[in-house]
Parts: sequence; structure tokens; C-alpha cells
Amino acid sequence: MNRMQTLRIELGERSYPIHIGSDLNAAELLAPYVTMKNVLLVTDSNVDRLYGEKVQAELGKNAASVTKFVFKAGEGSKNLATVENICRAAVRAGLDRSSVFAALGGGVCGDMTGLAAALYMRGTRYIQIPTTLLAMVDSSVGGKTGVDLPEGKNLVGAFFQPMLVLMEMNLLRTLPERELSNGFAEMVKTAVILDGELFETLERSAPELLRLSPGSPIAETVKRCCELKGQVVAKDERESNLRAILNYGHTFGHALEAVTGYTKFAHGEAVSIGMCMAADLAVSEGLMSGEEAQRQEALLREFHLPVDAGESVSPEALLNAMEHDKKSAGGKIKVVLADRIGHADVFSGIGREQIEEAVSGRL
Amino acid sequence: MNRMQTLRIELGERSYPIHIGSDLNAAELLAPYVTMKNVLLVTDSNVDRLYGEKVQAELGKNAASVTKFVFKAGEGSKNLATVENICRAAVRAGLDRSSVFAALGGGVCGDMTGLAAALYMRGTRYIQIPTTLLAMVDSSVGGKTGVDLPEGKNLVGAFFQPMLVLMEMNLLRTLPERELSNGFAEMVKTAVILDGELFETLERSAPELLRLSPGSPIAETVKRCCELKGQVVAKDERESNLRAILNYGHTFGHALEAVTGYTKFAHGEAVSIGMCMAADLAVSEGLMSGEEAQRQEALLREFHLPVDAGESVSPEALLNAMEHDKKSAGGKIKVVLADRIGHADVFSGIGREQIEEAVSGRL
Repeated sequence: MNRMQTLRIELGERSYPIHIGSDLNAAELLAPYVTMKNVLLVTDSNVDRLYGEKVQAELGKNAASVTKFVFKAGEGSKNLATVENICRAAVRAGLDRSSVFAALGGGVCGDMTGLAAALYMRGTRYIQIPTTLLAMVDSSVGGKTGVDLPEGKNLVGAFFQPMLVLMEMNLLRTLPERELSNGFAEMVKTAVILDGELFETLERSAPELLRLSPGSPIAETVKRCCELKGQVVAKDERESNLRAILNYGHTFGHALEAVTGYTKFAHGEAVSIGMCMAADLAVSEGLMSGEEAQRQEALLREFHLPVDAGESVSPEALLNAMEHDKKSAGGKIKVVLADRIGHADVFSGIGREQIEEAVSGRL
Repeated sequence: MNRMQTLRIELGERSYPIHIGSDLNAAELLAPYVTMKNVLLVTDSNVDRLYGEKVQAELGKNAASVTKFVFKAGEGSKNLATVENICRAAVRAGLDRSSVFAALGGGVCGDMTGLAAALYMRGTRYIQIPTTLLAMVDSSVGGKTGVDLPEGKNLVGAFFQPMLVLMEMNLLRTLPERELSNGFAEMVKTAVILDGELFETLERSAPELLRLSPGSPIAETVKRCCELKGQVVAKDERESNLRAILNYGHTFGHALEAVTGYTKFAHGEAVSIGMCMAADLAVSEGLMSGEEAQRQEALLREFHLPVDAGESVSPEALLNAMEHDKKSAGGKIKVVLADRIGHADVFSGIGREQIEEAVSGRL
């Protein structure tokens, strides 16, 4: 194939390109950013086994030095202690303010490497090479970096943009199906809130996309998702208002993850259930037609995503968790609802009882 | 007295006021920033004993809630683990994105609280109430926040501006003399690089300033130092070039602190010796007159500051440490030298031998 598409995320002096394709020439694409520089390549123990050495070699063709830092795979590593260890490795590898961090991995890796780059010597730069579909369509655009606290997820972090994102579709071939489905949950979300046409493409091609068939529009749909998210982020980099629609399904999803102890559901699965809750609420509020809610649910099922929690979580516990979400100012619950497939808005005036009623159908 | 002066640090949308005076009405001055908000008051174990309760009460007159977080006094606490504990306390105290952190203490407290505020929920706001002269004239202006790594000082941090700095001169009355001298080292530095007239004021009033006599121009000289630093920072917020002159005496001083294990010299003392080294080098390079170097040394002595290391540090070890300073790009040593009292520049072309020669006279 070797066809490459490039998308530019427009954020003034913080703008950056995303290269998307298969069989990309990584060394050549990375060269402008790493030539003669000391690079710290950050990856997790799973990804390292598959791609660590290869990517280190590609970076090494032009970098002055490439030091690899490997952390234990999993959300359990996503804390300030790991960020500190990344920074300490950077000191030992001789990185200075002109040096570069490279994140090879999923969202956890990108979020932590970005935060380390933001903090190291009060600000260096970083490159993202996402290895999961979720990281490609979600954490690669938006500049959200961060780690968890024992009290909650992503409570500590920074808005910090990469200088390059390299999306090699072949990396997805080693991804477990459950992880792939996770990424499609975010893609469905983006389509529902912003682009009816993308939604139709996903409906048409779901089985091929899930199998990553050679003829599937995986690169095109990934690119479109990044483009759409990029447009929203460009208008609202630090998440004051407009950007809130990107949280469609997330307020419910985060709460569901929290009340189930972050063990039962992967992020995309929780978001999938959250989108169904949002659609139910939108239908009951007379905002969305039942038919469109059905189409959304059918597409999520096509991607092998859950559409209800399938266990006894109490609606009240979920609502309490929603009130503790960091995006809820002063304890007031804001929910993002779609009025049709392709358009969404933020609603803050909906009563707690209506929300409880809507979520109870999915618990 | 109850005379208050207000200085505004001009940084566009990140501009903020500094109120300077004695017997200030803290509650009234803090009200616009904390009314109806949840506040986390961060302070160290020493300052807490002296002022913790009082400041908590002043904040509490208008805040929705004020929770106090106390960390163990000393540079040993200045790490990411403490920042994490501050953020965890913030979660437990119910702080959200619209809440406020308040730093009551010296540089360590301000640097960590600022970093916690920068990172908590990817960015809240903070207020500084400095209790040391060094924190007033140095860390209150410039937006540098950060913590140490085992590998070196201030290696992890962010540029992040407070929304208010409240400088109550009475707080200095409980400060040990050695700490007071530390602050005067930074004031002498500011005068040497930027303002000959301020230097003369310091020469005239050193004994009264050191005793904090009622008639001494302490508030005026503190204000002038903040104003001068503010002007430099306004032109170069993220330390690309111009701001580098603020490091006068610091490249030598940091190296001296590092090679003596951060135990022998307080920061201001190391900077004092560093300024003498810089002046010796400037004289030997034909940039500064010997007479002006003498005036600088005499003023530092007046403030009871050391002018040589008084122990056998090898010039070579010092130079090696200078090369590891995070401001030295690619291992090249940049030094800030004054050509006369009131003006300084950055020099990067000076040979290692010349620098070794100059520092050896102070070791």
C-alpha cells in the first residue's frame, strides 16, 4: 500500500502534523524531529516485546542517541511515580531542553510521556507513535496528558501538544480484538456527535474494519475522526465549553468505570454503554428519535461493544459518581446529548430523576 | 504603617498583581480571589506553627472552605511525591477546576504549590503568600514552578503564573538572619544586572535593611526588584534568551551547591559566591572594572553573605557541574557577566581555562 495521508492539527504555534498510513517510512518521517537529538523512547512491557527494538532502530538512523525506557504495561503504572522515573531516565540519558521524548504505545503511554515531556526541565517536546486504535483516534488529538491518583483517574496532568503523531496502521494487527473494539467506540462517538456521513461509512464497513481487511477504510476513517476532533480542539484547546461535546458517553462511562472499580469495563466499553444511556435520555427528553438511538446501538453491537452494564449497579451510585467527575463544576451534572446522528450539545438543566430513570435501563 | 503598594506583572491574560506592604488587610485583599471557593492552603511545618492558623482564618472570612495541607519543612520535601500528596488532599477537600490553591511559605512551598495548581485537573489557579525575602524577590515573579529529582534540582516543573501575590513585610520578622541574607543576595543580583540606582540604595541602607528597621526602604526595594524581574519576564516568559541574565551568579552558584551536596550553602549564599566569581571573570576578561567588582563584594559582605567557598572544591569539579546545568544547551557553558553595575549580558564564547582560572580564586 504505502499510501500516506497527512493531517495538520491547527493550534497556532502548537500546530502539528499527523501522518497516517501503512508501511510508512518511519525513519524518514521522524528525521526532521530527531536528527542529532537525544531521544528517550518510552514504551510499555507488552509493546516493547513487539516493536521496541524496531522503533528504536528507526529513530536511531538519525538521532544522536536513542535510550529506551520500558514501564510495566497497564493502567496501574499511570501515576506520578512512573512520570518521575521517565524524567530520571531522561537525565541519565543526557536529555536537555532541546531533546525529544517519543511515546510508543497506547493511551497510558502517550498520556504519561506527554506529561513527562511537559514537565522535564519545564518543557521539552514529544512525538507520539500510537499502537492502539483508541490512542490513534482519541489521545493523539487534544493534547490531554495526565496520570491517575488513588482518588480518581486523570486527576493530574497538563494540556500539552506533541510535535508529530505517526500512525502506522500495521501496528494494529497485533492488537487484541477487545482493544480494537475500544477504539471503534470512540469512532462511533465522534460520528454521532459530529458527522452523519462518517456514521454511514462505519455502518457500511463495520465487519471489514473490525477484521482490518486490506480493502477496509481504516486509515480514512481514523483520519476523519482525528480531523473532526482536531477542529473542535482548535476552537477550544483548554476545554472551556465547545470541547465538552467530545465527552459524549463519557460522563456516564467514567462514572460506570469508577463504580465498577476500573476492572470490569475497558474505557471504550464503558463509553459504549454511556452512549446508549445518553441516547435513552435524549429519546426520553424528546431530543432524538427512537430510530436513531436504535441505529447507534446496532452499530455499537456490530463492533462487538456492550450496550448495557449487565450487572447490578445502582442508578444512585452512578449518579453520585457523575457528580464527582472533574468536569462537573460545583456538583452540577452536565450531560452531552445528540439530537440526531451527526450533532450534539451540552445540557445542564436536566433533572436528576430523569437521568436516573434513563441510566436504570442499562444497568 | 499600613501603606500598600501594588505592582502589576504584565503577561497578557496571565497578568497578576503583587500587593506589598505592612499590616495589610489580608482578608480584604484575598476576597476577590477566594470568595465562595474551596481553598487548599499549603504550608510547611515551620511556617504552619507561626502563621498557619491566622492565614487560614483570613482566607476563611470569604472562602467557602479552607483546608490546610502541611508538609515537612525543607528542600527534602520538594519532590513529586509531595506534589501528589497536595493533589490528593485537594481531591479530599473537594477542590474542582474553579478552586484555588494558596501557598504560604518560602520558595519550596511556592514552587510545589504552583506545580500542584498547574497539574491538578490539568490546571487550576493559585495565590502566593511568601514568608521569606528570597521567595518575595525571586520565586514570586517569573512563574517558575518545580520540584527536584534525585539527579538534580528543579528538573521537573512548569511555567505557571499565580493570580495574586500578597507580600506582608511583617512576616519577615520571624525569619532567621541567614534566611534574610539569602534574600538580599537576590536583591544585589537584580541591582547589579539591571539597576545601578537600586544598587546605591542598597549600599546606603544595608544595615537598616538587614535589621528591618521601621524606617528602612524594605518594601520599596522589594517592590523595585519584583518590578525589574517582571519587566524581564514579560519580554521572555519561557526563558529563551533575554531572561537568561537573571541567572547572574546562578550558573556558578548552582554548580557550587551541587558539588557541595546542597548542605553547606543556602541558595543565596551560593549565588553570592557565584556573583563574585562572575565579577572576577568579568574583570579578567576586561569587561568590568576592578573597582566595581570591589563594590559588589563589599555590598554582599554588608549583607553578611560569603564571598568565597572557604573549602577545597576543585575548579574542575565545579566546571563539570556547570556543564550539567539544565540551561547549558549541548554541554556549552553560558555565563552571565556584568560589564558595569546596572548592566549584564550572556557570554557563551569564553574558554574553559579562563573560567577555571576565575573560579579558583574563590574556592
